[in-house]
Amino acid sequence: MDSSQFRDAAKGAVDEIANYYDTLEERPVLPSVAPGYLRPLLPDSTPEEGESWDKIQADIDRVIMPGLTHWQSPKFMAFFPCNSSFPAMLGDMYSGAFNAAAFNWICSPAVTELETVMMDWVAKLIALPKEFLSDGEGGGIIQGTASEVVVTAVVAARERLVRRKLADMPESEERMDKAADIRGRLVALGSEQAHSSTQKAAMIAGTRYRSVPAPKETNFSVTAAALRKTIEECREKGLEPYYFTITIGSTGTCAIDDLQGIAALAKEYPDLWIHVDAAYAGSALVCPEYQHLCPPIAAFDSFNFNLHKWLLVNFDCSAFFIKRRKDLMDTYSITPSYLRNPHSDQGMVTDYRDWQIPLGRRFRSLKVWFVLRSYGVNGLRALIRKHIDLGEYMHDLLKSRPDIFTVVTEPAFGLVTFQINPSPPSSAPTTTEDEAHPRHEACLNGLTSSDTQKANQTTKQVYEKMNAKGEFFLTSTVAGGRYVIRVVSATLLSEEKYINGVFDALVRVATREGEDEEEKEERGDSSTR
Amino acid sequence: MDSSQFRDAAKGAVDEIANYYDTLEERPVLPSVAPGYLRPLLPDSTPEEGESWDKIQADIDRVIMPGLTHWQSPKFMAFFPCNSSFPAMLGDMYSGAFNAAAFNWICSPAVTELETVMMDWVAKLIALPKEFLSDGEGGGIIQGTASEVVVTAVVAARERLVRRKLADMPESEERMDKAADIRGRLVALGSEQAHSSTQKAAMIAGTRYRSVPAPKETNFSVTAAALRKTIEECREKGLEPYYFTITIGSTGTCAIDDLQGIAALAKEYPDLWIHVDAAYAGSALVCPEYQHLCPPIAAFDSFNFNLHKWLLVNFDCSAFFIKRRKDLMDTYSITPSYLRNPHSDQGMVTDYRDWQIPLGRRFRSLKVWFVLRSYGVNGLRALIRKHIDLGEYMHDLLKSRPDIFTVVTEPAFGLVTFQINPSPPSSAPTTTEDEAHPRHEACLNGLTSSDTQKANQTTKQVYEKMNAKGEFFLTSTVAGGRYVIRVVSATLLSEEKYINGVFDALVRVATREGEDEEEKEERGDSSTR
Repeated sequence: MDSSQFRDAAKGAVDEIANYYDTLEERPVLPSVAPGYLRPLLPDSTPEEGESWDKIQADIDRVIMPGLTHWQSPKFMAFFPCNSSFPAMLGDMYSGAFNAAAFNWICSPAVTELETVMMDWVAKLIALPKEFLSDGEGGGIIQGTASEVVVTAVVAARERLVRRKLADMPESEERMDKAADIRGRLVALGSEQAHSSTQKAAMIAGTRYRSVPAPKETNFSVTAAALRKTIEECREKGLEPYYFTITIGSTGTCAIDDLQGIAALAKEYPDLWIHVDAAYAGSALVCPEYQHLCPPIAAFDSFNFNLHKWLLVNFDCSAFFIKRRKDLMDTYSITPSYLRNPHSDQGMVTDYRDWQIPLGRRFRSLKVWFVLRSYGVNGLRALIRKHIDLGEYMHDLLKSRPDIFTVVTEPAFGLVTFQINPSPPSSAPTTTEDEAHPRHEACLNGLTSSDTQKANQTTKQVYEKMNAKGEFFLTSTVAGGRYVIRVVSATLLSEEKYINGVFDALVRVATREGEDEEEKEERGDSSTR
Repeated sequence: MDSSQFRDAAKGAVDEIANYYDTLEERPVLPSVAPGYLRPLLPDSTPEEGESWDKIQADIDRVIMPGLTHWQSPKFMAFFPCNSSFPAMLGDMYSGAFNAAAFNWICSPAVTELETVMMDWVAKLIALPKEFLSDGEGGGIIQGTASEVVVTAVVAARERLVRRKLADMPESEERMDKAADIRGRLVALGSEQAHSSTQKAAMIAGTRYRSVPAPKETNFSVTAAALRKTIEECREKGLEPYYFTITIGSTGTCAIDDLQGIAALAKEYPDLWIHVDAAYAGSALVCPEYQHLCPPIAAFDSFNFNLHKWLLVNFDCSAFFIKRRKDLMDTYSITPSYLRNPHSDQGMVTDYRDWQIPLGRRFRSLKVWFVLRSYGVNGLRALIRKHIDLGEYMHDLLKSRPDIFTVVTEPAFGLVTFQINPSPPSSAPTTTEDEAHPRHEACLNGLTSSDTQKANQTTKQVYEKMNAKGEFFLTSTVAGGRYVIRVVSATLLSEEKYINGVFDALVRVATREGEDEEEKEERGDSSTR
């Protein structure tokens, strides 16, 4: 393909992509393919001779489109959103064109320098304390995902503690033995509501993991008292807590841990690396009405949120801010110490490879730049406020039918969780499906009363039926022993009419209005979804 | 920006990108900006109101273009290549449009299933042993970089050994203590020519690292005897080697470790995870004349090469093949065991999050599909052979001037390394620059004779002057105590005329032909490059 063919092909692709966005709301958000659908549609191996673009492009509709889950659809209300936007796509087009494995400054100075400036823009946009700006000892870096960031922070925390404890020992086998002994006693902490990535990161770092209680009584948040208790319990067993994930907007219910209380506690545990996971909710900090959450963050070591979730920058783009970049570089730089110099340490030349696990890096700051400029501060605030209003609106609808719905957690950052009230005994759903899913039984039986069990079963059945229909995509979680449906409507195309749509669908399914044989069959299919 | 504005903006961007490629050879490959050039060109923070695309696009030329290193330029002969291609860019355009955090099958079945099929296509294309195909116990996954892959393999190797040693112990504090003791004695191994990512991965895994000798006498390759000796030395000290990176195409000189000998040795050390790093040279396996290297790979645990280096798939796209996918899933799956099922284990539904460190994933198989189909097997073979021929051609040119050049390693996968012969004493360069760079002095003095030291100094000066000119971009390395210039010309636009160009430039600089005051000044600037 030469550049002239590329002009034609790429302009055709632009039209296809624009058409896709123009028709998003007409598409069922979930695909109806069965596992293994794709392989029979393709040959077994690479063709011997090259094929024309026309033939390749036609296969997008034939092979790919039927197997897509449409995350940009306004009917996508599952997980957290993963928003794209047209300016971000333009940024990625240029990034692909300027293709480079930009692992250090000279590999492409613009890649490094735009990233530093953009991370400063983002830090100011969300009112992060000045400690996280690049003109002091801190700064920001774009990594792939919040889970990659957590591993980066956990390993850096582990090694920081080892360095501090062995500061006086020169490199030697004996020092390595001591370091291994220290690592063997370390324990990483996270809320029992924290994303599972902290537990996975602790495993990758080869250390223990303990969860800190975050019960319904504290609105699923970790309090300073609970954290202190867990730390002290670990110490009594001879274990050393070295890392804690504090959460702004937990995955299950968008809970916020006690930022102020834990910031005060942090002074007592200076060797505990506290990392703020605000993967989704961090974007709300663009709005002044949420920025009261920011000052305590100065007491913590690192902060992360995903611009690819709620701030319109295509996946992947996770902003990781560090208070002392030296804490990363001392772990991840494999440049020998005699090459370290004041220019590098002061940020004259930043080699971001020394702030991360992988070596190479893409030019991701371009799409950040394009999005921030296209929307401006006010455009981004308007977007966040619209979604938060949609959460309130959903909440109001649910409260209007207390016969059907019980709200479990109030709307937070656009997310509301609720249960379906069980039907009267005569029409109660059978437990057949649940018996086939012992996980939920095992998980819930010990925790809940008989009434709650019934509500859990009913909620689960409605949830599975909703997704089996494929019109809206929702997710569920378990919060305080209750099986709940989560609804979060925060895509670029989200509107009140889709909230009305999902609410009406929930009412219909919960009350079994219009249920016919076809729909019963659909429900039977849900296990393949 | 609405979809109509996007159509216009994106088509304009397509033309800009095509123009960029059409003018690549006219641009100096290295930028001439100084560190910190970019910040003064931008405002301090996000604009309050959104800006128009015209204004944003204009800033690409003003702000970004001056700070780019042009990796797609045919004058880029540094590191290893990082090739883009038009079909790959088209793939990324669709991937950005179908934007999703595709962490499991239902998040977008097409993302998972196309990846599985494409990794099978790639495995067959490079004649990997059948153990690495998805229809058995193995399979492939796309990760970001070879360095990310190495961390993934190292941590999985560590935990596999722990699981094997503690197979009989139930989960308990005592088991965690034992596991910590085991981890504390582990040591990862890599050739002294191996990419530094293995050493970094060993640090991330919290284990020791030892390098295995790979001297000039064995053409910088690790032999089975050298590996055995290192393993036994570790064991004598009470350490347990658990991982070894075997290299096909080392970063410095494209050396190949003794695949057959080490494959035989592997049987004696079944707990040693052997990972094949073929990051660059793996692409050459598309050619039958290199596929004799493949059969021994069946004896190893995992294999990796970067399609984003030499196989025209835009960064990032690193293909990681595993012989027993269970070895990854047992470590990286955080799904509790009672949810494991035969369908998942046999690949009915693949959740690639359980094969990797991060959770979310982009739709990277699209660009693989487009590239493989656009070029076909024969197109890709022709490309590789062209670049290998260019390496031979460069070698012939160097040999034609034995008065100036000494070839240090013969061309391998297109890469040739050489030294500049020192001038006669009267015109010998001063050592001023070297005195400012104690690293090379310290590194080289102990290893080399006085003659070699002179050759090293001369080579370094010529190298720095070449890059200071900015017309061609080369890199250097130290091999067997010798400071050498590396030339590898393997971009899509590479041609003989650019080899002639770099050769002529090297001759001019080495013989100081036409050196004037301006050029002397340029040389003085090289430290900021």
